[in-house]
Amino acid sequence: MAAPLRRGDPQRRLRPGGRSARINEAILTAVVDELLESGYAKLSFERVAARAQAHKATLYRRWAGKEELVAEALLAQSGRAIPVPDTGSLREDLRLLTHAVIAHMSSPQGQALLRAFISDAGRVPEIGVAARAYWAERFTRAGAIVERGVERGELPAGTDTAFFIERLISPLFLRLLVTAEPIDTAYADRIIDALCPGDERPPDT
Amino acid sequence: MAAPLRRGDPQRRLRPGGRSARINEAILTAVVDELLESGYAKLSFERVAARAQAHKATLYRRWAGKEELVAEALLAQSGRAIPVPDTGSLREDLRLLTHAVIAHMSSPQGQALLRAFISDAGRVPEIGVAARAYWAERFTRAGAIVERGVERGELPAGTDTAFFIERLISPLFLRLLVTAEPIDTAYADRIIDALCPGDERPPDT
Repeated sequence: MAAPLRRGDPQRRLRPGGRSARINEAILTAVVDELLESGYAKLSFERVAARAQAHKATLYRRWAGKEELVAEALLAQSGRAIPVPDTGSLREDLRLLTHAVIAHMSSPQGQALLRAFISDAGRVPEIGVAARAYWAERFTRAGAIVERGVERGELPAGTDTAFFIERLISPLFLRLLVTAEPIDTAYADRIIDALCPGDERPPDT
Repeated sequence: MAAPLRRGDPQRRLRPGGRSARINEAILTAVVDELLESGYAKLSFERVAARAQAHKATLYRRWAGKEELVAEALLAQSGRAIPVPDTGSLREDLRLLTHAVIAHMSSPQGQALLRAFISDAGRVPEIGVAARAYWAERFTRAGAIVERGVERGELPAGTDTAFFIERLISPLFLRLLVTAEPIDTAYADRIIDALCPGDERPPDT
């Protein structure tokens, strides 16, 4: 789908709670704040360093470019907001995942970030690099739910995990961004019913 | 889904090619140009009238408000760009529809309109009224494909047409707006295969 985010994730090199980890977190938080305040186009290593009270050299040492920095900041943020569950049940995992997606997308911060990205993407083609890196990683993480479902026999062997996740989340984004129809957990459950064989309730298609 | 666009479509009252119909068309074209140039928030009856060289009173007589005017202008435009086919085959109709959607969404004008709407929607909550009116009408038109498929026995009785159309087009919008993955007709065909029972090719899920 996309190139790996970066070589050697510095999160792994950083002692949790150490000074370097704290600076890292301040930088990633500053990136999200800059995105919310000024958008992708105006974001720069200089502005992020100033906001995070970090040295510019630290940023240049840790991130190859703006795309990598932004993708990592968004992953850190969405990783906290939308954890990938592992309950032992495909349907339950999908429910928890979609419900977290809805909660995040319904929050002012989640909406603002999404709209800023989409709006900027019309003017800044390079934004696609950050978007693809971010989503490739999110799809890999969420895809684990589908893979475990296949292993347990809840989904047919050969199920395309990325395509499954696309069909799971895309109706939510369509309603939120395009048709302005309401999204709720009942709607998410309906999508899950349509995607999962052996429906517990009568299919509605 | 949403209130009907307006009482008594003036398109029907207007003699095609007549002076009044020409003014109507100039107004609707001016609305799209204004949206592209300045966005929804700044659009006004005054600006549209000036651009279309029409009287403001004409606009106030024909449209109840900005939301109705914008929804009708977008419907006129997308009606030309994305006709609803009726070939006698569900799969062929869905193919033609999605391929037209992809062509329109890939055009600079289609993309600019969509991004401007999404970006403005964060700041202008009333935009949801225009979006819902537009999409309710587009879903009704496209839903005819699904209804004919049910009548011909190509889809099960009781198929929810709006939910079917949502699952048909949402993966395209997800890729275009959110994940920045490429969309092409092969991808559309894959979505159709996943939605239609009795697949001609082996299902990929």
